[in-house]
Amino acid sequence: MTHHGGGRMPQDIPRVLLVAGTTATGEISGISAAGADPGIMALTPSADAEIVAYGEPVRTDVVPVSPTGCPTPAVVTRAVRELHSFPWAVVDAGLTRPTAAGTIDVGATRGADIRNETAVERASQIRQQARGVGAGMPDDHVVLGETIPGGTTTALGVLNALGERATVSSSLPDNPLDKKRAVVDDALAASGINRGDCAGEPMQAIGAVGDPVQAATLGLIEGLVASDTTVTLAGGTQQLTTAALARHAGIEEAIEVATTTFVVDDESTAVSALASDLAVSLTVTDPGFSGSDHVALQRFAAGEAKEGVAMGGVLALADAAGVAMADVREQITAVYERICGTEAGSEAAGTTPPTGEVDSLDGP
Amino acid sequence: MTHHGGGRMPQDIPRVLLVAGTTATGEISGISAAGADPGIMALTPSADAEIVAYGEPVRTDVVPVSPTGCPTPAVVTRAVRELHSFPWAVVDAGLTRPTAAGTIDVGATRGADIRNETAVERASQIRQQARGVGAGMPDDHVVLGETIPGGTTTALGVLNALGERATVSSSLPDNPLDKKRAVVDDALAASGINRGDCAGEPMQAIGAVGDPVQAATLGLIEGLVASDTTVTLAGGTQQLTTAALARHAGIEEAIEVATTTFVVDDESTAVSALASDLAVSLTVTDPGFSGSDHVALQRFAAGEAKEGVAMGGVLALADAAGVAMADVREQITAVYERICGTEAGSEAAGTTPPTGEVDSLDGP
Repeated sequence: MTHHGGGRMPQDIPRVLLVAGTTATGEISGISAAGADPGIMALTPSADAEIVAYGEPVRTDVVPVSPTGCPTPAVVTRAVRELHSFPWAVVDAGLTRPTAAGTIDVGATRGADIRNETAVERASQIRQQARGVGAGMPDDHVVLGETIPGGTTTALGVLNALGERATVSSSLPDNPLDKKRAVVDDALAASGINRGDCAGEPMQAIGAVGDPVQAATLGLIEGLVASDTTVTLAGGTQQLTTAALARHAGIEEAIEVATTTFVVDDESTAVSALASDLAVSLTVTDPGFSGSDHVALQRFAAGEAKEGVAMGGVLALADAAGVAMADVREQITAVYERICGTEAGSEAAGTTPPTGEVDSLDGP
Repeated sequence: MTHHGGGRMPQDIPRVLLVAGTTATGEISGISAAGADPGIMALTPSADAEIVAYGEPVRTDVVPVSPTGCPTPAVVTRAVRELHSFPWAVVDAGLTRPTAAGTIDVGATRGADIRNETAVERASQIRQQARGVGAGMPDDHVVLGETIPGGTTTALGVLNALGERATVSSSLPDNPLDKKRAVVDDALAASGINRGDCAGEPMQAIGAVGDPVQAATLGLIEGLVASDTTVTLAGGTQQLTTAALARHAGIEEAIEVATTTFVVDDESTAVSALASDLAVSLTVTDPGFSGSDHVALQRFAAGEAKEGVAMGGVLALADAAGVAMADVREQITAVYERICGTEAGSEAAGTTPPTGEVDSLDGP
């Protein structure tokens, strides 16, 4: 008999932890593209986790797409995983829908609307449990990703509360920044916080105007650096915000943020300046989607989605391991067509791939 | 740049789902070896899941060993995974301690002592949620393993309730069958059930004298066979009991049980006869531990642990893929020494490897 299939578990590949959650903030109309229908917004992180885990939805039975048909960045992360199989896990930072992806519990529940007085209950407990998880990870290098609808709005809230440069990206091609700013202004007022009031008090910022993914990610970073693990934050302005929280928590160790050209090219943000403010090194990967004739890649190139679900981080991992971006692009279209059907991929941009109904067996 | 490390995700390797839970039954003195100290019994499945996931405890900080130092079968399953990296996930069927292994939620909580009137609350809901998970799995072949202290006692209860051949194995070298029978007699009496009363009523058997791992595994089997997925149950008499539950639920599809020679060689059981009763095909793998001079293998060869944590199933997977059992044995000692220290491995059988304290950060 010959040894085929599996083969030895790869050593020394950085582990990817996807921190996944939801908030009532994410359901505010018009601030996020994470799901074409506001009704499925709460499903998006659960579906994202399944797409990375299994290559398709399992319990969620829905593929998150933007209003114009741009697939969730989970499709990119899954495609990279199929080419470069990194170890990974999901941290439950407030999921509200069942997912067939295995999740690590850190005691988080759905975040509130930040326009309430309190945005995250028990944020310190989430942080503390996540710190224990981070401290125990056996790896030399861990990549932290996120998926949380409305995450750039809570990021904007936290940057303001901390007094940092308040700039955020968007999953929509035209960043609804005025809408986000209005939500954040209301949120700060509801919590009685002025810009900069939470400097040096990251938990106060999260509790007042943040989200549970921030609390979990901050705790993970603390546990990881305490055990001499290199940390890469995968994502755009949300992860720069997490880096800001870490700095305000007194973490002085090196932090890398790995993102995509889609975020850095977005003129509405000043990502590089924020990274510089925070002494964070920025790794930017260009997956070369522009000029593609496939809808899955075209919509990204047009400025949708931009980041999320660890996309920037796993693209950087693949690039560092010598995986050709042409192979990544090919695999993305393969995953997309496997999930959404061949027809969806070959149609003009703007079509909406089929999305299923929530499996009532596994309802909330 | 050359492509090193990860490499393409292997295709077509059966997925392993480890169904992990706890019961108050497992804490009855003298019925299980899953943890030297009854106080850490509840930790064992959480630690098992971490050992398979990470190769070491992460949040649990304890390596389950029998009173004489036999390591948990999780060490074997992890060793196989390092040589033949199968896709896998953990189903939470009533874990009570935090685990850093990602877990799939099916709404299960810890099972009661079967000597109460009800052993498993909401067993039907656990089964139904697990059915949804099983139905959505994208694989052609899934292997179901288990880890639940006291699982052979709840198995004995269920076999009696169903009226099947009531024989069970043990994780202890001298099977405390009289103790188990006494517990089961009390359990049946407390539920007002005579032998065979639950024939054709598997949920009644589980609810009265079973455990949540049985409810979840039954649901998974149902969902998997409904979506034309081949099912292998990895384990000994506990998994034959799950097969019995499936037969009593009306499932007529082929079911394979993959176990080890340690179970089949155990004269106190009549495993082959039970398999035959249930029209279940039995795959038995001999990992060749006898004659080893390493404590980790000696204790297995002496009849401890025998099975659990999908050990028999993953040994069969490795064997089918052409992995040499000599390589498996070498990897088991490597994992054991990595976790317990080199000294523990080279000492005479009977020593207890170091076990840590529960991380208070992550307490219940």
